[in-house]
Amino acid sequence: MLTSINNPKVKEWKKLHKRKFRERMGCFIIEGDHLVEEALRSGWKIEELMIREDYTFPIPEEVPWTEVSIQVFEAIAQTETPQGIAAVVSIEEKQYKHSQLSLLIDGVQDPGNLGTLIRTADAAGFEQVILGNGTVDAFNEKVVRATQGSIFHIPVVRGNLEEVVKELQTSGVKVFASSLTNAISYKEIATPRQVALIIGNEGNGVKEELIELADEQIYIPIYGKAESLNAAIAGAVLMYHLRG
Amino acid sequence: MLTSINNPKVKEWKKLHKRKFRERMGCFIIEGDHLVEEALRSGWKIEELMIREDYTFPIPEEVPWTEVSIQVFEAIAQTETPQGIAAVVSIEEKQYKHSQLSLLIDGVQDPGNLGTLIRTADAAGFEQVILGNGTVDAFNEKVVRATQGSIFHIPVVRGNLEEVVKELQTSGVKVFASSLTNAISYKEIATPRQVALIIGNEGNGVKEELIELADEQIYIPIYGKAESLNAAIAGAVLMYHLRG
Repeated sequence: MLTSINNPKVKEWKKLHKRKFRERMGCFIIEGDHLVEEALRSGWKIEELMIREDYTFPIPEEVPWTEVSIQVFEAIAQTETPQGIAAVVSIEEKQYKHSQLSLLIDGVQDPGNLGTLIRTADAAGFEQVILGNGTVDAFNEKVVRATQGSIFHIPVVRGNLEEVVKELQTSGVKVFASSLTNAISYKEIATPRQVALIIGNEGNGVKEELIELADEQIYIPIYGKAESLNAAIAGAVLMYHLRG
Repeated sequence: MLTSINNPKVKEWKKLHKRKFRERMGCFIIEGDHLVEEALRSGWKIEELMIREDYTFPIPEEVPWTEVSIQVFEAIAQTETPQGIAAVVSIEEKQYKHSQLSLLIDGVQDPGNLGTLIRTADAAGFEQVILGNGTVDAFNEKVVRATQGSIFHIPVVRGNLEEVVKELQTSGVKVFASSLTNAISYKEIATPRQVALIIGNEGNGVKEELIELADEQIYIPIYGKAESLNAAIAGAVLMYHLRG
């Protein structure tokens, strides 16, 4: 059993809380029964499971694991009252591909919002999520937690959104940008067979260059006195409408 | 200027972070320019503004205010990098009333989810939000923050949901319970003029007694591999559909 928080392995695991190290090491860290089960089921490569000394979890034979002390587990865990299981998972690099239903994310900053958008894209049957520059890292732990496992179900890729939009349009996909001004209500939109939806930054929305490239700007009507909708909420209402 | 965190006033303000004291004192605390501006605009009674010594905020003449030191403000504030303005606001007790569009919340636990549901209900033109037993307090600071000011726009009341459902039905309102089993897809639902929607607890959904009372159980189809939708997301998709 691993009992020292100064053990080199423990130090490596803790580094995975930072984006820079996730990118360098090509892996990320997840916590809790549900996410670890989803990871195991998904076929993504588990580098190692960390199981807390007092915890029970059915570990498959082929997966490497290390038992750690309560103190070590606390040093690794990011949630306040963690379940006693965590895992280091190898990042599967996905490629942008032609899809009938794509969600494009332009600069969403809040990890909960991005995670929820990925989960909802999965639920709504979208086929990929493409993250433009300035978007929070998909392998940030708060993002992964909010995806509730959908990070393992739906390809999440990074891309230059201007190029992606042009490529999608060339292959017949209609691109909609979510917007508050100069837009038409989503309820007026017939739902084409091939769709991409762009959701923008919480404060600034979709950037000008992308709005100009999009085929149509759409908005969700505000009937009450709220100034706007949360980005993940707007994404959900539009995705469920656009998928027809 | 108030400089001691042991000042009785500061102690009172800090107590407002707890539900028990909010209920006893009949007020709650908000932070940041946007929420304070919304509170001032709303006509809700501001008991007192707290402004940090280094901060500038246009305080209306009739509103009582206290300048506080940076240290005192940090002791009061709950956000990590607060703006230097906060306020104690008197809770306006609202009453349940007959409405054409009502959102009923049965045991939602996550403050962010409840706040987002209130914000979205406001945006979708719903007329009231009724909180059943076991639902997180609407005046919890994380809830208020997630409402983005909608707590001041739309009546949020507590009630016995079984009684509320029966009263609404008597006056011709059609009541829908969000569900995962024995339900029909929301897309099949014609949108009646008078609607109430029940959203349930994150883990357990709407409780059995309410499901039985509801006129119809509806669900949102999952097209991908996600197991479920976030409660606030489900509420948003259903509210925007049901409002027609």
